[in-house]
This record gives sequence, C-alpha cells and structure tokens, in this order.
Amino acid sequence: MPKAVVLLSGGMDSATTLAIAREQGFDCLALSFSYGQRHALELDAARAVAGRYGVRQETVIIDLRSLGGSALTADIPVPKDRPLAGMGKEIPVTYVPARNTIFLAFALAWAEVSGARDIFLGVNALDYSGYPDCRPEYIAAFERMANLATKAGVEGVRFTIHAPLIAMTKKEIVARGLELGVDYGMTVSCYDPVPGPLACGRCDACLLRLSAFAGLGKKDPAAYR
Amino acid sequence: MPKAVVLLSGGMDSATTLAIAREQGFDCLALSFSYGQRHALELDAARAVAGRYGVRQETVIIDLRSLGGSALTADIPVPKDRPLAGMGKEIPVTYVPARNTIFLAFALAWAEVSGARDIFLGVNALDYSGYPDCRPEYIAAFERMANLATKAGVEGVRFTIHAPLIAMTKKEIVARGLELGVDYGMTVSCYDPVPGPLACGRCDACLLRLSAFAGLGKKDPAAYR
Repeated sequence: MPKAVVLLSGGMDSATTLAIAREQGFDCLALSFSYGQRHALELDAARAVAGRYGVRQETVIIDLRSLGGSALTADIPVPKDRPLAGMGKEIPVTYVPARNTIFLAFALAWAEVSGARDIFLGVNALDYSGYPDCRPEYIAAFERMANLATKAGVEGVRFTIHAPLIAMTKKEIVARGLELGVDYGMTVSCYDPVPGPLACGRCDACLLRLSAFAGLGKKDPAAYR
Repeated sequence: MPKAVVLLSGGMDSATTLAIAREQGFDCLALSFSYGQRHALELDAARAVAGRYGVRQETVIIDLRSLGGSALTADIPVPKDRPLAGMGKEIPVTYVPARNTIFLAFALAWAEVSGARDIFLGVNALDYSGYPDCRPEYIAAFERMANLATKAGVEGVRFTIHAPLIAMTKKEIVARGLELGVDYGMTVSCYDPVPGPLACGRCDACLLRLSAFAGLGKKDPAAYR
C-alpha cells in the first residue's frame, strides 16, 4: 500500500479526507497540530478519528499564539451568526497567518521521512470562509515548491498534494463522508467549543456544517450547546 | 524604514545576511529556530548577533527530532574531514527534511503579522553542502507560493524572498561581511560544537568557513577545539 500523510484537524472536512485517502488505498499517517488554537478540543477528535481507522497519528506542537492576529489563537472574539451568503467574500478574523503553509511544510517533512509521496488536506474553496491558503492556485504552487525542496525530490520522488474536497460543496462533502461511513459525531468543527465537546452552533464552521446536514435532510450528530 | 524578517541561525552566512539587510535600509526582525539541533549553541550566537545590531529577535520552538533522519537532529554522527571538492555533489546526512520550507513558512507568517514584505535568508548554492532547499529555483518557487498564501497577498502585498548570498563563494561572503563590520567571532557555524563555544574544525560547515578565511589570508576569529 502506498503511504500518504493526511492533515487531520479533527473536523468534518479532514475526517472525510482521511476516509477518501483510505478508500483510495493509502496507508495513512495522520498529522495534527497543537498550535495554541482556542478549539484545542479538536485534537481529541483527531486522535479519536485516527483511532477509529487504526492509523498512526502524530501531533506536531507549535505555538502560533505569539504571532497574534487571529481569533483562533488570540483574545479576539470568534464572529458569530454571519450570513452564509457573505462567507468567502472577505477573509474573516479567524484567518491564521500562513497556517496551511506551516502545516503543509511539516507534512512534507513527514512525507519525506516516511516514504510517502502523497499528502492529503481537506481544504475547500466553495462553501468556505475565504481563506487564501484554501484556493486551488495556492495548492498547486505549494506542490510545485515541494517538488524542489527535498532530498527525496532530487532523488526522483514526485510529491502530490491532494485536496479532494476543494471543488465540493459542504453538502457534497457530508454526503460523500456518510457514504464512506464517517462518524461525524466524533468530529469537532466548531471554532469555539466548550468541553463535552459542545459546539457553539453560531461560528462560520458550525453554520456551514449545519447547513450541509440540513441540505441533506439529516441531523448533525455533533452535540451543540 | 521598510520592515524585513531575517532568518538568523547564528552562523556566518545568516549574520552576513542580517548585515546586508540592514545596509539595504531594512528594519529587521530576526527569526531563529530551536528545532532540536545538536548545535543549539548557535542560538546563543543568534541572540548575541541580534543584540549587537539592536534588532528584535524571536526564537520559534519546534521539534524536528521526532522526524529523525538527520545527523543534526538524531543520533547519527556528523561527517568529518570530507574533502571540500566533494561537497555539493551529493546531499549529506546533515540534511534536515524540509527544514528551509518550515523556516520560511514561519517567516512568512511573521512577515504578514509584522507588516514586512521582505524575507531574507542566508542560503548559498555555490560553496555548500548540496542541500536542495538552498537552490535558486527552490527560493523562486517558495516566493511564488508565498504570494498566494496569505491574506496580505490577497490585499495586494507582494512578498520578496531575498537570498543575497546565493551566488557568492564563501570567500566573497566573508569579504562582504568584513566590509560591513560583521564580528564573526560572535557566530557559530559548526554542526558539532562544544560549550565555549568551540567549533570542531572538521565538519562541512567548519571546513567551508575555514577555507573562506584562509582564502582571504585572514584568521577566523571563532574558537576551535
């Protein structure tokens, strides 16, 4: 089985991405990040999801709080009750500077040492919050850079960055995950959860997720406050 | 004064790069990395060099030891006494997987939050150890990716990655640094130093450095074992 590194936050999109990578026949290493996020409860979800699939999981510890500037890592309120129609039109304060670049850089290092040529991440550029590092042109540019960055690359390995959800709606993502048997009750998407975990139901991540389940006529199995 | 983020390891090349960035009129933030390197003594040098120039210095703490695979972060001997002529022909075990990609990813994040458009790093592709992430094509690909990665980029900021030493010989680097008043006695280039700090005089980094000073007919002010 070919190896792959899968970025696993513990949310809905990354859990679906892990299921897709496994269905495609990859032996997966799940990589999670403890970066000072206010929703660190997602890390328990990441470990639970990886455990469910019996895949190795590593948590990389970095601290993005000292950077500041984001509602996910600093004392800035997470926006609530934003209209779905407005999302993606401007980049909200939940943006974390260069986060996916940092995450993918570590994924590349892990891919190189573990003999993986494939890296999966669950970014989505359709029903999303407008983050620049979720766009297809960004992913393509990272892949190009990655193929010049490593010893493995010099030796002929070609890395591929897979973003299987990038052109899917949130509704399509949930439908695909349910087809693959993803247990969304184990996942935490909320930016502002409380122990339980209980999701807030009002941040962008919750609203996008709830609308996806509603659109399918399904109940989201996550617990909400 | 325009702001710049400068990767500062504490070695000869990065100290010279900081001097060049300052001479070009940049207000510099020096970024160093504690990544589990065996030559962590270089971090004291980084702080000393930054202090000498009165520039703000941040140390990012990450742990690349769990990745393994490098003589700089794992229990693998640092190669000694390699002929200078052979360097750059194959990538030695001192290669750290995706290290410059990880460092530049953090530099990009710091540049974005601090309002810098310029990032400097002291890579060199002439008298070097053959690391893939020191080549001009890699630097260009990183810059291209960086300009798609951030909120600042979406808002019109254009980031430039400067590698002023990339086409210089080690001798030219030292000559330029001496011109700019760099105190190389404060820097630690050695991959395998002992407290003092005392450099080994036999690893690639020491041999390249010693040959540069010798080529100029100067004495390297660093202390050797």
